[in-house]
Amino acid sequence: EVMFAFAAQSAARRVILASGSPRRKEILQNVGISFVVNSSKFDETSLDKSKFAAPTDFVMENSRQKALEVASRVGEASFDLIISADTVVVLDGKILEKPAHPAEAFAMLKSLSGRQHNVVTGVTLLRPASPPASFFESTDVVFTALSDDEISAYIATNEPFDKAGGYGIQSLGAFFVQGIVGDYYNVVGFPLFRFSREVQKIVWE
Amino acid sequence: EVMFAFAAQSAARRVILASGSPRRKEILQNVGISFVVNSSKFDETSLDKSKFAAPTDFVMENSRQKALEVASRVGEASFDLIISADTVVVLDGKILEKPAHPAEAFAMLKSLSGRQHNVVTGVTLLRPASPPASFFESTDVVFTALSDDEISAYIATNEPFDKAGGYGIQSLGAFFVQGIVGDYYNVVGFPLFRFSREVQKIVWE
Repeated sequence: EVMFAFAAQSAARRVILASGSPRRKEILQNVGISFVVNSSKFDETSLDKSKFAAPTDFVMENSRQKALEVASRVGEASFDLIISADTVVVLDGKILEKPAHPAEAFAMLKSLSGRQHNVVTGVTLLRPASPPASFFESTDVVFTALSDDEISAYIATNEPFDKAGGYGIQSLGAFFVQGIVGDYYNVVGFPLFRFSREVQKIVWE
Repeated sequence: EVMFAFAAQSAARRVILASGSPRRKEILQNVGISFVVNSSKFDETSLDKSKFAAPTDFVMENSRQKALEVASRVGEASFDLIISADTVVVLDGKILEKPAHPAEAFAMLKSLSGRQHNVVTGVTLLRPASPPASFFESTDVVFTALSDDEISAYIATNEPFDKAGGYGIQSLGAFFVQGIVGDYYNVVGFPLFRFSREVQKIVWE
């Protein structure tokens, strides 16, 4: 069931996914990639967003810091590749992360209602004794217009709270998404197509 | 975990999914809809494609026939709603269904390589003593350029054979899809967003 070269190679390599997201884990497992999960302890809220020229720079730097934290903790001798990622929702150039409480989730979903936004994921591929290689992928999402009742009913399911922008396209949030332009998996949290291209550039020793 | 009105209502209604597709079943279950599966015995290859002005007419008629077959077999007294669907891949106005053997799968994937195509799903909602209500949804898919080796490796996984156009975006076929324009779930086989809008028009007795 393994098709693309990296998935086959990954079985013989020590690949670490530096993310605790069950969705990222599922996306990579689904295409036959072998890895262990070692969630980064880097505090993703510690970077000052205002210091970055663009959201794309912010997510790439966040993913870089996540990978470097895992590398320094486990040691360079104990991995062949670390994969890390950071996903945000961008509306009018402003970054929406995970809502902390119902009122914040309501405000986020209200601001997304009836409009188009972007989901941006930064990914870092880190190999021992090499500089981290980072890239980003952006996908447009067209949200339908939501009533306050729909927003409240959605918040009551508790789905918004661990998700950038306060919704999950892979479950009940699907009802809000008229359509996307780009890679669906990027909206879920990991740009699988672009990753498959970037990871093939790696030459294993 | 139920949010939208139809999902809540479905628990008290006798809803039949007239499709044996495990993907359609998963999409509907994932958003909390209650139903039983009763696969249509209508032969979806029996309609003459050349008699339809457009692929959209063809998939709607196929879905209509699937729903009517189940209705006549189970009887009108035994259901409140039948949901049926038919999905095809359309390239240059030509319909691609499921490949029957490796050579056909190879030719299909080769024709899709490096190009854009459409995935079109027809859906019928059938209630007792009412005319069937049908609609369709179309999604653009941008395929990356594939080498013959990549196509052969993919065919060797056996993934192409039960899928319209010979690929599945929800598993290894994801590596071939640069991006989409529209509803991801429609590419998997069921237009969830559009369905959620259409099904809300139904007034239960």
